[in-house]
Amino acid sequence: MVRPVVSTFARWGTPPKPASLSDAAKEFLAGIGTPQFPSALPVVADIPVARSRLTKAQHAELAAIVGAENVSTSDADRVLHSAGCSLTDYLELRRKLRRPLPDAVVRPSSRDEVNSLLMACSAAGITVVPFGGGTSVVGGLRGFAHTKRSIAVAFDRMAGIRSIDPVNSTVTVEPGITGPDLERALAEVGLLLGHLPQSWERATIGGYAATRSAGQNSTGYGRSDEMIEEMVVATPVGEIVLGRVHRSAAGPDLRQLFIGSEGVFGIITEITLRVRRAPEVTKYEGLMFPDFFSGETAFRELAQQGLTSEILRLSDEHETITALTMSGPSGRAKELFDKYLELRKVDGGCLAILGWEGHNRRLVSAKRSAAWKVLKAHGAVSLGSGVGESWRKHRFEGPFLRDELLDLGYIVETLETAAHWRQAAELKAAVAQALEQALAADGVQPFVMCHISHVYETSVSLYFTVISVAKSDPVKQWAAAKKAACDAIEAHAGTITHHHGVGADHAPWLTEEIGPRGVAVLRAVKAAVDPEGILNPGVLLPPQE
Amino acid sequence: MVRPVVSTFARWGTPPKPASLSDAAKEFLAGIGTPQFPSALPVVADIPVARSRLTKAQHAELAAIVGAENVSTSDADRVLHSAGCSLTDYLELRRKLRRPLPDAVVRPSSRDEVNSLLMACSAAGITVVPFGGGTSVVGGLRGFAHTKRSIAVAFDRMAGIRSIDPVNSTVTVEPGITGPDLERALAEVGLLLGHLPQSWERATIGGYAATRSAGQNSTGYGRSDEMIEEMVVATPVGEIVLGRVHRSAAGPDLRQLFIGSEGVFGIITEITLRVRRAPEVTKYEGLMFPDFFSGETAFRELAQQGLTSEILRLSDEHETITALTMSGPSGRAKELFDKYLELRKVDGGCLAILGWEGHNRRLVSAKRSAAWKVLKAHGAVSLGSGVGESWRKHRFEGPFLRDELLDLGYIVETLETAAHWRQAAELKAAVAQALEQALAADGVQPFVMCHISHVYETSVSLYFTVISVAKSDPVKQWAAAKKAACDAIEAHAGTITHHHGVGADHAPWLTEEIGPRGVAVLRAVKAAVDPEGILNPGVLLPPQE
Repeated sequence: MVRPVVSTFARWGTPPKPASLSDAAKEFLAGIGTPQFPSALPVVADIPVARSRLTKAQHAELAAIVGAENVSTSDADRVLHSAGCSLTDYLELRRKLRRPLPDAVVRPSSRDEVNSLLMACSAAGITVVPFGGGTSVVGGLRGFAHTKRSIAVAFDRMAGIRSIDPVNSTVTVEPGITGPDLERALAEVGLLLGHLPQSWERATIGGYAATRSAGQNSTGYGRSDEMIEEMVVATPVGEIVLGRVHRSAAGPDLRQLFIGSEGVFGIITEITLRVRRAPEVTKYEGLMFPDFFSGETAFRELAQQGLTSEILRLSDEHETITALTMSGPSGRAKELFDKYLELRKVDGGCLAILGWEGHNRRLVSAKRSAAWKVLKAHGAVSLGSGVGESWRKHRFEGPFLRDELLDLGYIVETLETAAHWRQAAELKAAVAQALEQALAADGVQPFVMCHISHVYETSVSLYFTVISVAKSDPVKQWAAAKKAACDAIEAHAGTITHHHGVGADHAPWLTEEIGPRGVAVLRAVKAAVDPEGILNPGVLLPPQE
Repeated sequence: MVRPVVSTFARWGTPPKPASLSDAAKEFLAGIGTPQFPSALPVVADIPVARSRLTKAQHAELAAIVGAENVSTSDADRVLHSAGCSLTDYLELRRKLRRPLPDAVVRPSSRDEVNSLLMACSAAGITVVPFGGGTSVVGGLRGFAHTKRSIAVAFDRMAGIRSIDPVNSTVTVEPGITGPDLERALAEVGLLLGHLPQSWERATIGGYAATRSAGQNSTGYGRSDEMIEEMVVATPVGEIVLGRVHRSAAGPDLRQLFIGSEGVFGIITEITLRVRRAPEVTKYEGLMFPDFFSGETAFRELAQQGLTSEILRLSDEHETITALTMSGPSGRAKELFDKYLELRKVDGGCLAILGWEGHNRRLVSAKRSAAWKVLKAHGAVSLGSGVGESWRKHRFEGPFLRDELLDLGYIVETLETAAHWRQAAELKAAVAQALEQALAADGVQPFVMCHISHVYETSVSLYFTVISVAKSDPVKQWAAAKKAACDAIEAHAGTITHHHGVGADHAPWLTEEIGPRGVAVLRAVKAAVDPEGILNPGVLLPPQE
């Protein structure tokens, strides 16, 4: 079954949902500036398409591998597989720019077919770009070029579950399966993966692995790189099976070389993941800290005392105001809520969400009560489980709003980093300042929000959202702001990405991140597994001098 | 300060302790067979030494880097840095075989000196073997050759603590520091690393990282590969700094390529480790399961329900009998103990040790009580905390006994693996059978014991100890047995090593473990960072066809 295409041409959501902005939200947005360049979601027919450059012989060779009906050169397929979900992708499509497209979309159905495709393309010098859910927000789908023949490999026909093993607590899947499909199947046998990125509705498990992704629950359930037991990777020089046993001392862990390799070293064709038993106890709750520093310190204490809940989020003052304005109480309820916060001296404070999930009520309760001692010592005031459950219910709705804001003429984007605890406050301030300075203009006051999205014993991730008014060339406008933010991250000991990945957008900063010799090691691996350099060019590896 | 040399020439322990075998132990050993070839611990002067082959110019060049007094060509230094602690190492030394020795032992004092050493040796084609604690049990110190000039790099002068950061919960150390020295310094500020390999008294932190080691508490505190935040590695092409932030999605995790690289890709010159606050609550306890299967199933349940203690060990029937014979109760106490076990239907059963460590009494207690529900459901009977504390007190004493057994004319060695839960029972039986068959002979009944040493959600490690009577050529005798065990491991989906590392001894099995293309990737990395191939030849990478 070929899945219905969900893409940048559809509003977010399955089915797409219209966002509706409240009056309070509109007032809030007006404070950021008056938009002058609204834009509209394009349809595929709006996008300029050049003819597929595949020769008849090339087309026939691909068709011989996957079947003629699975080599598509239709305009729609080619356009729909040409872009991810970054603000830049969105803006370029809305502006109907002529972007490089794949010359065909190829849909293999097996490991063997992917192996054969890579060998054939390597021999023919055809670029290969794997297309998972198409949700990259960092230019992960920028491997196509105007000057070179290319194909996108789509995994619609490789989206099944191979086996579920409750004894080993693992599931083996094909790369194209999405989170919702996998979780539905696991739930039937009382299991759970627990990986919930914001792109959950569209992203594929293969994409999780290829980009080293994290999700909202990753503080508790682990990041994708902690969940992957075994991976089969097709490369132009043949198939590699990685991860014989989860924990081993048999030399370097090659899994961790291919996890996060973003299609540059190979195409993941099968993945075995650690799963967990579905929790019997869940409790989501909201709380308010007097300020960000108190919340950050409390979260650090929780991490270092082993008292973290499965989800911990701490919004800064800006994000807290926005959350309360966009979806908080109104009217009389708002008055009472404000009074409550004021009395407890956390008005103007910072909202936090804790999500507890577990199997044993007494154990969850003991952990939560130990955690609350720490939280209270840092001034936290409970907002109860209503706030937590509300967050949980609406957790995937961020992207819906994005379409709406772009329609109106705002630009909105997110970016993220992580740093050791000691560096976090300075890093946060530097990134916010970089974004604000880069986007500020006459009558425009860009609005930068931040939250802590994951905590570790030694480090913490910071997730930024920025809203501003679009200028006449918003692509260029955002590129400058993004560069300023990335420079600030690198200058303040942050990682260029905690979970979005490198893509083409962060590639220029990778040399700073891992050093020139680290890059040389990656290039040596690349040359060994992809000697013709056909796989996802321009992504991950920094541009050569 | 140059540390006092502790090596294969001293009985184990600092200071060395004599082992004393009880009558019961002697009776037990008699059941295995009557030794005919006792051996004696040699002194350095017993070992044949060829002259150092370094030229005057080479010696001068090394001396210019580290100072003349830090380039030692003394017989003692060269012999003491030529071997690890495997049974084969021990036997070869006791038999005074002529082994290849380093031509000099070089003691750098800084990152820069190590960088310079590698560049100089690369230019001169001199083999470099890093020597940490010298405790490899898998031939990690077999890089020396009769046909090639070589040096051992020792880290006596790089054994300091650079900094302790309680906010980031990290410590930065030089590679030569040992566990006891590091733990003493951390304890002064209420912190703890919690890495306790059996080789704890001698092994170095650099060695932990180079070999991807695990310790007795690693189920709770994590393996070395989970503790390492940042690593600086000197290579012949220059220094690489790995691990900007603990968790990152900035492409492949290069730390995990260099952790476990066993000196083949470079020399680790600085390490930042995650530390923890010293626990306020500790409780070690013993229990008895009716049989191994019950215990294994209970341990799997604990792992998959998130109820593991920091230490979990489950001895099989053989190891249980041995433990009780060697150090269990005697006389009237033994009678009562046997009666207790019989009444509770766990006589002839399997001994387990749980070690709980934590910060919050109520939380530890809630977890322990949830765990005990599971344990009891699988037939576990408590032996109380006396048994647990006794295990804890004697936890590092295994190696003491080894010298004694070798003196008497027994061979004794350990080996280990890990597998997914489903494969564990079959793997355990296959390895035991392989060892027994390989070592059995007229009047000799080799004794194979096993325990579960670490548990994970999806997998479990199995640790084997084998005692037999030495034949006239015990080196050859053990090589055959070890080969049979390794073949059984690979044939039954185990990893060739869970925490001992690859060394020279396991290298022939690496191709089976990671596939020929995985090996090709490692070779590509090797060529990129060590183009002249000077680093630790013969270790890790399988012999070329």
